[in-house]
Amino acid sequence: MSELARRSDLPVATIKYYLREDLLHHGEAVGATRAQYDESHVRRLRLVRALIEVAGMRLDDVRRVLDAIDDESLSWHEAIGSAHTRLAQPVNATASDAERERVDALLARHDWELAEQSRHRDALAAALASLAALGHPPSDETLDTYAEAANLISERDVSSLKETDRAEAAEHAVVSTLLLEPVLLILRRVAQENSSRRRAM
Amino acid sequence: MSELARRSDLPVATIKYYLREDLLHHGEAVGATRAQYDESHVRRLRLVRALIEVAGMRLDDVRRVLDAIDDESLSWHEAIGSAHTRLAQPVNATASDAERERVDALLARHDWELAEQSRHRDALAAALASLAALGHPPSDETLDTYAEAANLISERDVSSLKETDRAEAAEHAVVSTLLLEPVLLILRRVAQENSSRRRAM
Repeated sequence: MSELARRSDLPVATIKYYLREDLLHHGEAVGATRAQYDESHVRRLRLVRALIEVAGMRLDDVRRVLDAIDDESLSWHEAIGSAHTRLAQPVNATASDAERERVDALLARHDWELAEQSRHRDALAAALASLAALGHPPSDETLDTYAEAANLISERDVSSLKETDRAEAAEHAVVSTLLLEPVLLILRRVAQENSSRRRAM
Repeated sequence: MSELARRSDLPVATIKYYLREDLLHHGEAVGATRAQYDESHVRRLRLVRALIEVAGMRLDDVRRVLDAIDDESLSWHEAIGSAHTRLAQPVNATASDAERERVDALLARHDWELAEQSRHRDALAAALASLAALGHPPSDETLDTYAEAANLISERDVSSLKETDRAEAAEHAVVSTLLLEPVLLILRRVAQENSSRRRAM
């Protein structure tokens, strides 16, 4: 346990807490008070830490993402979809039928399908409703540009998935989805500031 | 006041609270107990509501964004930069010099400059450090694809800014930056799921 704490750079108390909260699998018992931990424990602790510290997730949500990664009954594609669904943000605003229709038209233009239980459609419609209520509804051209950019990124994301160990690949998908989000948002702001400055010159 | 509550779809108590908290400018006094509110009040209330309900910001941060919008001493470009800086997420992870050098190389490849006090550089380096610590460092190709997508989006964002009223344009920039973020992230997940499914077939 102390060796695991050293390698994961976490206090023993935190590791014990994660074990109690089912965020970490138990080690193999070797004697009454000792357990054997391996590379899978170090790896899982790093993942839990990143989800909490970097992605800012609550323990409940971390557990849901880990469940999706660990669920062997899910196919490769289902595991990604399921993790995504569990990662989805709660929707705060409500959308009208008009916004749902705009979303459907957008998805159709880009030849995208959604799983039946997907919350993405409502989340997108709610975001459009908020922008419209504020008097800044995005144009179809803006939405299409965003979709085009999302497509560019996702083709790269999916092609960078290595078809190795299933658990490792699923972990990679979830980690990349979550941790590349801030990268994308920051790069968008950097690019906006630079586009804005160039136009001001 | 009751008319303002009706038009903004907010309780009178909430509007009074926003007035006390300096999130809304006072109306013009007409008599001892009545004040005149106009379109600017309706508009500001919608913005405050969206920042809180959709962007999930705390009151302190909302006030900072409003200050940037209202600060007449800032140029158009500075107002966007300042609002962005105030919108920036706190950085939780720490980065090494190696990650900062990767960020600088990325910025140079895309001909991007950052303001001296910008926190974007540290935030990007920290995100790269987290990904590396988890054993999933993004390749240069991945980062370049993200930067390319960010550039595509930002050119559209900046070109959609109307050069009308300064306060309105600044508000548009902040609202779009914040409220199109969830749109972009959801579209990326939709695109990933579709790319993933197509490869599975």
